[in-house]
Amino acid sequence: MIVVMHSGAEKNEIDEVLERLQGLGFQIHLSQGVERTIIGAIGDKTRLNETALEAMPGVEKVVPILQPYKLVSREFKDHNSVVRVGELEMGREKIHVMAGPCAVESKEQLMETAKQVARAGATVLRGGAFKPRTSPYAFQGLEEEGLKMLAEARESTGLKIITEVVDPRTVELVSRYADILQIGARNMQNFFLLKEVAQSEKPVVLKRGPSATVEEWLMAAEYLMSGGNYNVILCERGIRTFEPYLRNTLDLSAVPVAKHLSHLPVIVDPSHAIGKWRFVKPMAMAAVAAGADGLLIEVHPNPAQALCDGPQSLTPDNFMDLMSELGRVASVLGRVV
Amino acid sequence: MIVVMHSGAEKNEIDEVLERLQGLGFQIHLSQGVERTIIGAIGDKTRLNETALEAMPGVEKVVPILQPYKLVSREFKDHNSVVRVGELEMGREKIHVMAGPCAVESKEQLMETAKQVARAGATVLRGGAFKPRTSPYAFQGLEEEGLKMLAEARESTGLKIITEVVDPRTVELVSRYADILQIGARNMQNFFLLKEVAQSEKPVVLKRGPSATVEEWLMAAEYLMSGGNYNVILCERGIRTFEPYLRNTLDLSAVPVAKHLSHLPVIVDPSHAIGKWRFVKPMAMAAVAAGADGLLIEVHPNPAQALCDGPQSLTPDNFMDLMSELGRVASVLGRVV
Amino acid sequence: MIVVMHSGAEKNEIDEVLERLQGLGFQIHLSQGVERTIIGAIGDKTRLNETALEAMPGVEKVVPILQPYKLVSREFKDHNSVVRVGELEMGREKIHVMAGPCAVESKEQLMETAKQVARAGATVLRGGAFKPRTSPYAFQGLEEEGLKMLAEARESTGLKIITEVVDPRTVELVSRYADILQIGARNMQNFFLLKEVAQSEKPVVLKRGPSATVEEWLMAAEYLMSGGNYNVILCERGIRTFEPYLRNTLDLSAVPVAKHLSHLPVIVDPSHAIGKWRFVKPMAMAAVAAGADGLLIEVHPNPAQALCDGPQSLTPDNFMDLMSELGRVASVLGRVV
Amino acid sequence: MIVVMHSGAEKNEIDEVLERLQGLGFQIHLSQGVERTIIGAIGDKTRLNETALEAMPGVEKVVPILQPYKLVSREFKDHNSVVRVGELEMGREKIHVMAGPCAVESKEQLMETAKQVARAGATVLRGGAFKPRTSPYAFQGLEEEGLKMLAEARESTGLKIITEVVDPRTVELVSRYADILQIGARNMQNFFLLKEVAQSEKPVVLKRGPSATVEEWLMAAEYLMSGGNYNVILCERGIRTFEPYLRNTLDLSAVPVAKHLSHLPVIVDPSHAIGKWRFVKPMAMAAVAAGADGLLIEVHPNPAQALCDGPQSLTPDNFMDLMSELGRVASVLGRVV
Repeated sequence: MIVVMHSGAEKNEIDEVLERLQGLGFQIHLSQGVERTIIGAIGDKTRLNETALEAMPGVEKVVPILQPYKLVSREFKDHNSVVRVGELEMGREKIHVMAGPCAVESKEQLMETAKQVARAGATVLRGGAFKPRTSPYAFQGLEEEGLKMLAEARESTGLKIITEVVDPRTVELVSRYADILQIGARNMQNFFLLKEVAQSEKPVVLKRGPSATVEEWLMAAEYLMSGGNYNVILCERGIRTFEPYLRNTLDLSAVPVAKHLSHLPVIVDPSHAIGKWRFVKPMAMAAVAAGADGLLIEVHPNPAQALCDGPQSLTPDNFMDLMSELGRVASVLGRVV
Repeated sequence: MIVVMHSGAEKNEIDEVLERLQGLGFQIHLSQGVERTIIGAIGDKTRLNETALEAMPGVEKVVPILQPYKLVSREFKDHNSVVRVGELEMGREKIHVMAGPCAVESKEQLMETAKQVARAGATVLRGGAFKPRTSPYAFQGLEEEGLKMLAEARESTGLKIITEVVDPRTVELVSRYADILQIGARNMQNFFLLKEVAQSEKPVVLKRGPSATVEEWLMAAEYLMSGGNYNVILCERGIRTFEPYLRNTLDLSAVPVAKHLSHLPVIVDPSHAIGKWRFVKPMAMAAVAAGADGLLIEVHPNPAQALCDGPQSLTPDNFMDLMSELGRVASVLGRVV
Repeated sequence: MIVVMHSGAEKNEIDEVLERLQGLGFQIHLSQGVERTIIGAIGDKTRLNETALEAMPGVEKVVPILQPYKLVSREFKDHNSVVRVGELEMGREKIHVMAGPCAVESKEQLMETAKQVARAGATVLRGGAFKPRTSPYAFQGLEEEGLKMLAEARESTGLKIITEVVDPRTVELVSRYADILQIGARNMQNFFLLKEVAQSEKPVVLKRGPSATVEEWLMAAEYLMSGGNYNVILCERGIRTFEPYLRNTLDLSAVPVAKHLSHLPVIVDPSHAIGKWRFVKPMAMAAVAAGADGLLIEVHPNPAQALCDGPQSLTPDNFMDLMSELGRVASVLGRVV
Repeated sequence: MIVVMHSGAEKNEIDEVLERLQGLGFQIHLSQGVERTIIGAIGDKTRLNETALEAMPGVEKVVPILQPYKLVSREFKDHNSVVRVGELEMGREKIHVMAGPCAVESKEQLMETAKQVARAGATVLRGGAFKPRTSPYAFQGLEEEGLKMLAEARESTGLKIITEVVDPRTVELVSRYADILQIGARNMQNFFLLKEVAQSEKPVVLKRGPSATVEEWLMAAEYLMSGGNYNVILCERGIRTFEPYLRNTLDLSAVPVAKHLSHLPVIVDPSHAIGKWRFVKPMAMAAVAAGADGLLIEVHPNPAQALCDGPQSLTPDNFMDLMSELGRVASVLGRVV
């Protein structure tokens, strides 16, 4: 860490900073330039949180040099992590496509979707049973009933199941049914939910918050890993910007960046980012070209009747078409779908 | 609601939209222009959530006309709501200042701060016992021990207590000690926490999420009110923008806007938005001039030793100075601090 | 256009709006609901700019239904435009790669780069002679000397030349040397520059402003087309968001969106968006997969000695490697590089 | 400046960076920690632009320590600058209010507004003669005719005149009529316009770009000062965020921040930021409370007939009311309006 002192910092102010840092066990390098005194401090970065250096008199700013995360970082582990979901392996050559409706609405809707996405080549079925909705008046999900339907769909299709956990009180319940727990974008910094999920051994898809930096996203993953759950898959799903035409701006550069900074697998959810089905295909193609390890795609047998997110859902036919083209892009990168 | 059809929409596509809307009980106005067919639909807006009109063939976009919230809206109640906290009234002439440390760290720290902010004119003591922290390695709060210290500080100073709830499982616990529950910015759309707090009768300060629109903020308040808790105070605390110099950008225009759209009291937390104590005073002054009904200010007896948010904390002396000037601005608006 | 009146709008306020609209030749549809009066107005959209309806008493908001641009819109021309640069055609099967240094620094630097990018398959040489720089103390370009070097490089390699125009006073000068004029991101709404370029017949690459919506970008293109220059190529180059790790956030969804709303070719500049060469390749691949008609890539023979934008420049070897993989992605989409 | 090397940087990579820095005359401090080698470099910061350190092998990032601007900085000049406009002084106790219509539309409109704003206490008349408009079909201003009307209004009221320069070719023309040149938000980084205005001696109001950081704004001011024009007044006018309710988000914290980093006067334009007249008053009050040295306010005798920006214009009566309350807030801060 670098401590930059104000241009007019007094000698005793500098001394107090040095003393504080040395007291915390940091090794010190002092550079006294004409315009500024700069203090380099080398030591255990976790102690940084215990200091309030920027509040000390004479300090202009503190510049961290090392990343604040450890277990998720590429420096901690330099080869790619592979997350196992039963016999599936996320983070290897195969790009896994997780597809299905936004919400589980009925047995018929779910079964029909499950069969179609399985036939098209998806390996995981998505579907929400607990729905975090912006409006208290919107459909809130079928809850345990929905989880049971997901389990039945797994039985009959062999697909793995991913579904969202939204509340620390129901993590255990959801874990009884799901193969992969999903932490939604708005819960990325729901630290008490993260701590609960960290105690599960289930693989977790951690969505990036719509206004989270990549660093904050990795810090959320650090909560999971430091709590004991190493089966973390990162998921980019669009960030909030000033652009109003689409729901969010899909930040595909987050894929190579996250894979550069971390060893964890990274997947992409183009459906939620975009909000309009027409643009899901080109962005799914682009996500694979950018190096994504998987995709989350919304598919609904009848989008115009969907209880949520109809406008962004592909029909089974459109999904089938997407899958065949995805495979061709994947092969350019030496991967398969 | 207005449904705008694509320029080349077919007659049967238009008919299907009309049929769907009429089936949901909407009254229809059809405008067939040269370039577009536009359908106006008047009816019960809560049914909007059950439709997926934008996913219907031929539909270009759906433009909502009415606000999606009801109970929080100025149309539902045209005079200002007053939230009572014991004998205090939030939303009247008096501007209430809630002050104290980011986190309860020790009995001494809390007691000293409490006495000083009370003497300076604050009416409510703030202090976190459960801390949602970006890093799993940072100080996470004293939990129930901290709540007890807050209660003791209330005993000895007469200040009311505001503290954060972070987990649906501890709402009941926190409610036993606090006079006001605070929902933090990152939990603004933690709907399962909102539903739990909605069942309490405690006054709630609902912070705006750092990337939440005013409409989403009001929808979060609607969760509280529709769940039964009408004692809601809105709190602007800065939004995330591209500007890196301060932690966030304090959006003071949200104060008159929220008060125009809603009848709820609106307060401002300049400390978190700004992150540097030096700029807290001008922004607190500006918040009062913009019409805020109260302020949340971080005060710490020794910011350079604070376990969290030291750089943005005022010393008791700076707080005393701020309070006297705030009173003079308030008086220009016919209010008191 | 839809005019939404306030819930308590008076009859005479409604009448005045109706009168104003009728006076401007609009055809009117009046919907009087329980909560709101809504007025639909159909007519010549260019007159909208002459009204100030939102300022009329009783008006809550005005919702435009049609897009504000005409000549650039897909409705005006439903097949893709092809922009010709000599014998090259932008907007057909071939994806044109425009490559070269940020700035023309010397004859040697430019010639070496030109030869290498030509050999790798680029068809256009980029290089700035007038540089808009954030700092007045930074290298500002070789000006006409640089333009001459670009012309020489064209002579010896057969590459077309693209270079930036930055000032209405030098459009004529730059046009004497360049094959394609580039309007930089910060000049996207420099309307007086746009008007001058509109009077040229040179093809123009119009970069999206870093905080411009797609609609504003298309409106800037409308300035060019309405001024007489139909040879417009749109270029996405990253938008400003809260994410600090990369220089900007490359908004690849803008590619299919712009191609949906407009008939103009769309290219992508991943180098400027990203600012770190390491991530240029995956994002260039993704841009092609998303449907881009071309790419702008920074290449420098010695990035560590570049006078500007070294960190984002590819070496000739890295560029050669990129080109071969781009071709394979392009072929999946039925295109060539 | 601090150069952070990659964790696995080779010795020869470190040596090359040291050599480069020493060659540029920097004094070096080397810190070799367990996880990283960090190089502190002290020397002439303007040489930074000539280096491309981040592109050198083994370099992870370069962290600047000093600000990139000089002449505008508080370190260059520690007392507040006062900009003189004839007998007026901007940056002293008196808060100058500049008021008038968005665009000069006619002699009658301008004269009436001028008289009314003068009577209410404004000291400067604003009004655009050249209008940068998003749409090529919108009213583009009366050009020199408008400038003449402004000059006449000055004659008859004694108000100073501020009007926008939009094109380097007309700076000289506008300077013949105006007392203050305004550089609009979208032209903040139109460096060739800045260079032209830098050669004028006229006072300049430099608006912050809607997506410019405070640092970029100060760098734009540095263009003016380094070019010879020291009469610079900064103007905050709202930044672009995700919030759609108002046109922009007025960033009032930019006022104390800019005054902390720079010695230049800072004024605020709430009208453009907000776009709805109803919220102009509270934000103007807040701007003064936050320490603004002046205000730019749109006033129109008949907003519903305005050719531009009607919805955000105050009527003369509303302006009169605003002025009287502003004075009372100003007096709390020891200032006058």
